[in-house]
Amino acid sequence: MSLYDAMFSQYGVKIAQVLVTKPDFYNEETRRNLISTLSELISLNIVPIINTNDAVSPPPQVDEPIGGRPGKRGISLKDNDSLAAMLAAEIQSDLLILMSDVDGIYSKPPWEEGAKFLHTFTSDLRHTIEYGQKSKVGTGGMDSKVNAATWALDRGVSVVICNGMQDKAIKTILSGRKVGTFFTDSSVGGSVPTEVIAENARTGGRILATITSDQRASCIHKLADLLISKQSDILDANQKDLQEATKSGLAKPLLSRLSLTPAKLRNLAVGLHQIADSSHKNVGRVLRRTKLADGLELKQITVPIGVLLVIFESRPDSLPQVAALAIASGNGLLLKGGKEAAHSNKALMELVTESLASIGATNAISLVSTREEIGDLLSMEQHIDLIIPRGSTELVRSIQSQSQHIPVMGHAEGICHVYIDKEADLQKALKIIRDSKCDYPAACNAMETLLVHENLMEGEFFSDICNMLKKEGVTINAGPVLHQMLTFGPPLAKTMKLEYGSLECCVEVVKNIDEAINHIYKYGSGHTDVIVTENNDTAESFQKRIDSACVFHNASSRFADGFRFGLGAEVGISTARIHARGPVGVEGLLTTKWVLNGTDHAAADFSEDGGRTWLHESLPLDE
Amino acid sequence: MSLYDAMFSQYGVKIAQVLVTKPDFYNEETRRNLISTLSELISLNIVPIINTNDAVSPPPQVDEPIGGRPGKRGISLKDNDSLAAMLAAEIQSDLLILMSDVDGIYSKPPWEEGAKFLHTFTSDLRHTIEYGQKSKVGTGGMDSKVNAATWALDRGVSVVICNGMQDKAIKTILSGRKVGTFFTDSSVGGSVPTEVIAENARTGGRILATITSDQRASCIHKLADLLISKQSDILDANQKDLQEATKSGLAKPLLSRLSLTPAKLRNLAVGLHQIADSSHKNVGRVLRRTKLADGLELKQITVPIGVLLVIFESRPDSLPQVAALAIASGNGLLLKGGKEAAHSNKALMELVTESLASIGATNAISLVSTREEIGDLLSMEQHIDLIIPRGSTELVRSIQSQSQHIPVMGHAEGICHVYIDKEADLQKALKIIRDSKCDYPAACNAMETLLVHENLMEGEFFSDICNMLKKEGVTINAGPVLHQMLTFGPPLAKTMKLEYGSLECCVEVVKNIDEAINHIYKYGSGHTDVIVTENNDTAESFQKRIDSACVFHNASSRFADGFRFGLGAEVGISTARIHARGPVGVEGLLTTKWVLNGTDHAAADFSEDGGRTWLHESLPLDE
Repeated sequence: MSLYDAMFSQYGVKIAQVLVTKPDFYNEETRRNLISTLSELISLNIVPIINTNDAVSPPPQVDEPIGGRPGKRGISLKDNDSLAAMLAAEIQSDLLILMSDVDGIYSKPPWEEGAKFLHTFTSDLRHTIEYGQKSKVGTGGMDSKVNAATWALDRGVSVVICNGMQDKAIKTILSGRKVGTFFTDSSVGGSVPTEVIAENARTGGRILATITSDQRASCIHKLADLLISKQSDILDANQKDLQEATKSGLAKPLLSRLSLTPAKLRNLAVGLHQIADSSHKNVGRVLRRTKLADGLELKQITVPIGVLLVIFESRPDSLPQVAALAIASGNGLLLKGGKEAAHSNKALMELVTESLASIGATNAISLVSTREEIGDLLSMEQHIDLIIPRGSTELVRSIQSQSQHIPVMGHAEGICHVYIDKEADLQKALKIIRDSKCDYPAACNAMETLLVHENLMEGEFFSDICNMLKKEGVTINAGPVLHQMLTFGPPLAKTMKLEYGSLECCVEVVKNIDEAINHIYKYGSGHTDVIVTENNDTAESFQKRIDSACVFHNASSRFADGFRFGLGAEVGISTARIHARGPVGVEGLLTTKWVLNGTDHAAADFSEDGGRTWLHESLPLDE
Repeated sequence: MSLYDAMFSQYGVKIAQVLVTKPDFYNEETRRNLISTLSELISLNIVPIINTNDAVSPPPQVDEPIGGRPGKRGISLKDNDSLAAMLAAEIQSDLLILMSDVDGIYSKPPWEEGAKFLHTFTSDLRHTIEYGQKSKVGTGGMDSKVNAATWALDRGVSVVICNGMQDKAIKTILSGRKVGTFFTDSSVGGSVPTEVIAENARTGGRILATITSDQRASCIHKLADLLISKQSDILDANQKDLQEATKSGLAKPLLSRLSLTPAKLRNLAVGLHQIADSSHKNVGRVLRRTKLADGLELKQITVPIGVLLVIFESRPDSLPQVAALAIASGNGLLLKGGKEAAHSNKALMELVTESLASIGATNAISLVSTREEIGDLLSMEQHIDLIIPRGSTELVRSIQSQSQHIPVMGHAEGICHVYIDKEADLQKALKIIRDSKCDYPAACNAMETLLVHENLMEGEFFSDICNMLKKEGVTINAGPVLHQMLTFGPPLAKTMKLEYGSLECCVEVVKNIDEAINHIYKYGSGHTDVIVTENNDTAESFQKRIDSACVFHNASSRFADGFRFGLGAEVGISTARIHARGPVGVEGLLTTKWVLNGTDHAAADFSEDGGRTWLHESLPLDE
């Protein structure tokens, strides 16, 4: 107690020791006293530290069978866990935290294979989910804790069993993050655990992957039709979201993204039919055929990646589109939508489920509860193969930095450059600059920095460009060099590594193409960079040396787009350097596997005395 | 002090306060007293807590110019940093730790773009490296700390400046991990910081990527020739490693991996010449050509990934091979070899550098000091694009789990299955099982689990298989079902998710192909799985439903290999589901970029009133 005292006092917290024995809980008077003592202490901001009065506590009396039958009071006071449970029930506390040296409850002993960690433990789960049963005996020493926890739960007290060694455990639990195992009866965070949903997505995805492409197409067509036939339900749900959003004062642009209209739904349906029509090209496409030896043929074919997690903000129309892409590519899918679109997403998800049911893959796609912590999803590398965040730069960046072992496909920023070479044609330059910056300034493929060859500073060229930008209402910031040159020029740009995303840009002067390229190396984000020149050799060297995802010559940066590239529906734009890069179509949701067919081929056959010889002869792809 | 006292006492540590003033350091007697006091306290295991005796300390006298000239004693005692420095120098302490609220020294103020964190700060660095200079004023408030640190360093005391808020900072520093900035004069961890080496690799790689494929090839040929002409130097260096390894009692198999022979070098050279000859196919290959519109042509071409980090154990012969692959694919490369092969790697690296010099890309490939913490390399996502660990399962697994934001290409384990269907041919089955398990049991593509259809349990079939395995000296473990069936069968396998990697395997019985497939889903590692059957429909459904990297029919699992697949030199085998999958050739070191050529095309041209129309017509790849 003196150690407790010393430590608490460092935080200016007063404590008091309270010793109890089991009879105290049965004698009405002692019970009343105990409770008033505790409430008095708490009202005085004194933290009671309670323990069994070992000196006087008698041997346990009534012992409760494991699980503890509600109604009948009394579990053994042998251990502090049951003491805690009884006290918690007694004072009707909101939360009981039981700390141990293990992280929580597993479906089996943690060291056994297939042992699952249980984040939530609801009393219905206890009876429905297979490993809910085992868990009590799962981790051996945990029995008494699980016992006490369920006993308290039956009396309306939520319980967390967690690892006490863990840093800031209590703080984290109170902040609502998932730590340890949460015993609760509220549906909050409860229902089916995400791990199970993800496993179902894996299984469902495998069904999607093995059915025929016609079946996949039919499923997507069905979804497209439902968007029209169930239009009113969707719009009603969307109305709810809009009303709540307006109440909570959501910004205008966000509101328009959130709102669904009959027109939007029609276009959505059209897009889905297109995805369906082209879906036969996705799974099972042969990329390489090699005759390794007589009767031994190797094929590399496209297959789904597995289970995708798509995190999207507002825009509920993303949901059916992403779902369609997943179905078309035979992937399982977890969808995590924004709270603000909860009703719309729920309504749309029902349609997805209905169409999946038509091909017996209902579980392939699930909407993850908006309450699920993203952090928890990002740690499920066993269940999720690829994460695709769709939304603001902030969202993508935070997902990229949080996800540790699951690859994230996306681009944190698009700092696109347009370089005007000394041999550029003024008219083309003006046109390409205008389009790159002004066509849609908020897009990630819009120009942020304009690099101008110094030769163009004499004469009209430069001023023409600036006047055009001014006329278009573009605010200009000057790079250091330009700022030096002009006495009354535009203000100095705070940084040249910035995505303005609006009618604003940075203009800088460079000595030559090398300086331009080095500027892009240094400040670019590897998204899209453009050169304007009439000299094809210069263009070629620029396009060779710049290693961004997209490098254009005499064309607007705005062409960096999946549809414009002819990739069909765009999954996203990736600035990653492995897997898909640049605008990504449905190919980005596919990987490959190697299929080898022999008769009875063994590697040993190819040894000196094996008699077989390698051919490694590549065959035409269409068998 | 009483708070210190309270907190230290919780760890049973006694403390003592010592107050000093500047004159104490100049008066010989007080100095002697001070030192004996401190050493006495330390000898009594009492931690001295030293502070300026503010009550009596006079205003600072001699002030030292920034940087502190050695020889001349005395820097201001205005701050605790210089007090610490003087004390550290006084008692010749091994390490002085200065804790602040920033993480350490940056090349510029951390909030400025391009600011680099300095892990090590050697006095030579101070004068050579550009940002060594700035750093003193770099982070503003750090001046006095850097001052004190360099002053102490000049007097032979190593210093670490780190963030005191950081968890377990002192422990981590003492454990030798890189925390904060380490001021040192020893070459340990010093020389050029890895960040700089990595940046050079980026620059050098860009040179490799832009020169002609002939130049890349010539560089590799040169390296191959050097392996022969400089053979004796290599073997001498290798001898040193072997001697030290033998002294330290390295295991036989490891020794043989470590040892280089003229034969090994010859084969290595042959392999390198092959890589050179096929290298023209790598960079700049056109994968897709689309005519987006009149005069607007899009190409998707292969480009290097960027900077690779290859971590390899023993086998020094990996070094030239990996280097050749990097050169052939135009990638920058950081090599991290095992300590045991230090001399050999150094010798081989010199040859790589020499051949790179011939094409002016000397910095493209570097050998990272064996002292560099792997953990630090894995956190350099700004500098490294892909990590390839080559070595034991343990190595790969630890790299995969440690690397948080850099993709890792490799396979943690190869739990390969061979399923014998009820319609299998006995002779083929025997042959394929023997080869899969016995051809090279240590390989990752060797069979670990044999699944047998229950129909084959009656009759000779099963016993023939077991007898064959016994004859080959294979230890058999039984899966639960088989174990149930046999009264005197093999022992029960501890787990079915195990890579034996030796002449040992698990045998299990399944009711049908579904059970076989589910077993593989549950216990497999997605590496290579085989079905043996005469029924092609069964085979087809197996090859369709199993989503491992390699799925074979009537062929040994041992064919899962880059050379056997005809991919040329093998970079590794990947069980990842994005980027390269299965056996990976040099393609695995490439990504793509999109090259668009127009005349003056703007996105707005394609709007209703723009007048231009999309064609999206795919063109033949060979222009």
